[in-house]
Amino acid sequence: MSEVHAARRARLRDRCAANGAAAALVTRPANIRYLTGTAPAGAALLIGPGHDDTDATLVRLRPPPEDGGPDEAPDDLRSTVLPAPDGDAAVAAADLARERHADALAVEEHHLTVTRHRAIASVVDTLPLVDLGGAVEQLRLIKDEHEIANLRIAAEIADQALGELLESILVGRTERHLALELERRLVDHGAEGPAFRTSVGTGPHSGAPRHVPTDRRVEEGDFLTVRLGARYRGYRCEVGRTFVIGTAPAAWQIDLYDLVFAAQRAGREALAPGVACRDVDRATRQPLTAAGHEEGLAQWSGHGVGLEIDEDPRLSPAAMGKLDACVPVTVEPGVHLPGRGGVRIDDTLVVRPVADGGPELLTITTKELLAL
Amino acid sequence: MSEVHAARRARLRDRCAANGAAAALVTRPANIRYLTGTAPAGAALLIGPGHDDTDATLVRLRPPPEDGGPDEAPDDLRSTVLPAPDGDAAVAAADLARERHADALAVEEHHLTVTRHRAIASVVDTLPLVDLGGAVEQLRLIKDEHEIANLRIAAEIADQALGELLESILVGRTERHLALELERRLVDHGAEGPAFRTSVGTGPHSGAPRHVPTDRRVEEGDFLTVRLGARYRGYRCEVGRTFVIGTAPAAWQIDLYDLVFAAQRAGREALAPGVACRDVDRATRQPLTAAGHEEGLAQWSGHGVGLEIDEDPRLSPAAMGKLDACVPVTVEPGVHLPGRGGVRIDDTLVVRPVADGGPELLTITTKELLAL
Repeated sequence: MSEVHAARRARLRDRCAANGAAAALVTRPANIRYLTGTAPAGAALLIGPGHDDTDATLVRLRPPPEDGGPDEAPDDLRSTVLPAPDGDAAVAAADLARERHADALAVEEHHLTVTRHRAIASVVDTLPLVDLGGAVEQLRLIKDEHEIANLRIAAEIADQALGELLESILVGRTERHLALELERRLVDHGAEGPAFRTSVGTGPHSGAPRHVPTDRRVEEGDFLTVRLGARYRGYRCEVGRTFVIGTAPAAWQIDLYDLVFAAQRAGREALAPGVACRDVDRATRQPLTAAGHEEGLAQWSGHGVGLEIDEDPRLSPAAMGKLDACVPVTVEPGVHLPGRGGVRIDDTLVVRPVADGGPELLTITTKELLAL
Repeated sequence: MSEVHAARRARLRDRCAANGAAAALVTRPANIRYLTGTAPAGAALLIGPGHDDTDATLVRLRPPPEDGGPDEAPDDLRSTVLPAPDGDAAVAAADLARERHADALAVEEHHLTVTRHRAIASVVDTLPLVDLGGAVEQLRLIKDEHEIANLRIAAEIADQALGELLESILVGRTERHLALELERRLVDHGAEGPAFRTSVGTGPHSGAPRHVPTDRRVEEGDFLTVRLGARYRGYRCEVGRTFVIGTAPAAWQIDLYDLVFAAQRAGREALAPGVACRDVDRATRQPLTAAGHEEGLAQWSGHGVGLEIDEDPRLSPAAMGKLDACVPVTVEPGVHLPGRGGVRIDDTLVVRPVADGGPELLTITTKELLAL
């Protein structure tokens, strides 16, 4: 994989050079991981100055763990360990850029705090600081097949954990315990951990966006909404389903489910290279607003996933930009009726051209309305 | 509790006024929670301008969950819900400060990114932005008895979870599974969740600071290091112990355990109001360096706990400042021998004057070397 990371760093160097900065200081952990394959706590990555990949230096605060493991420094990178007990790796990396006579240093102003930026400015002396902006995030948008393979495995793990839960007795168990059990099953099936905090909502909590599990117990007749994801080699996916508890769903439950299902399908079918992100949002949102559920809808219909669970692109009414092939996104509409509950259905898909079969569904758990 | 929060906000207002800023914008979530009892995602808190507590305004992005819950707005605060789909609550709160003709606005430069700070600067027009610094963190240092009561319960929960684990069969189970089981037990006993990611290290991983659990299984003769904590009403504690697996520990294990135990006891006994933080660190560190373990020691011997697991004060060689009564801290020395493993012992205590019985130990799990 180290050639992959070197190629990514080369692309970033080219972009910086085009903008007149021969050196870049990367501090956002997911960006460091994207460019090196590792992101030790508190680390900073200096790219350049220079055109040689050995000019990339990973600076970190503490010695690496003696037993190796995921924190180990990549072989193809210089790794500098700082002894400073309360040091800031970003400040030390900026100091290296000054020593190497960079002409300008691009920093991630959307990640650095004002205080850290000032500390960096004070060590670089006359070296001008410029904004790297979301340059690395832009590179991260379109995934390569290694990244998609990791997402595919993450989705498979989440599907397995969810499938096992459906085979167990649910009535009488609390949201909190179901969420913990799902997270244990994710790890059982090979996840590094949950991709985000697992959400389980029963009865009046069902369908609520980002519901935090409580001690409410599953009851007969409830809607049950589950939203979970696995992290595999750093990559995070997301799946959400709504079920009904008991022998048969009520008429309002069937109607609401069919509505959200239709919205989610419309969103999935809208995914294609070249389509505006806001158009995918509109396709997903339109069936719900047409049915009178405008109020209380989430401000997005989906979002990118990858090394973070909430990446670009955003599928929202105000979103700019178009989808590209090989961009993984979620499509996750939902309706929540205060006091009654609701439905959310959430998949992770990869945008693919029609010639390649259209969007690739990674989370394959059934979307039929199951009565459990 | 709302009078408690109002009194905290009044103290912050007084401090800001003394520094010439009649308005403060608080964005760090733990600080917002300290001042209001709640911290909805993305929220910002505007204190002032003015001397009346109704001049505190909690600004947040999304409507509150319909079913109430912990995100609900405190009754004694104005709560403004912004409709901006991609808005920033801090920018909106700064705009309010401008509308209310504040003379200056103090912001948390150690929390705001350069990009957000610039967005705030662009809306406040001629209103000068100044640095609030760690003013709220300073208020948070000394805990009141409500806060200590929450920490005491959090510690009790962690002790219970750890105690139950010790009664179960450990040989053959993986670090990852033991960590997940501990987290489940924390929730069983009433924790909102783990205070931080539970660490379980076996054999060569034992004693390593902040070890991330792996699939290594517990074996006969291993040292087993466990570090966990509970979150209760937002407050986080920490306990760490090392055990030996099998019938009898080896001589080197007993020697190393006795050494770390002596260091940890020295640190605990050094805790008193008025003592320099670096002196507590020195007391803890000295027995370990005297025995030749200087290299590889952690850069701190302990730290404050509260709404965050890693707060001021720091107990480290470079730490400034002295301890006060009612400051909860950890004392957590450890030695890790590469390839062999090691010992860590970690308690949460509250600094108390001798007249009140000296340091109050919150985590009471035995520190005898247990052979399990």
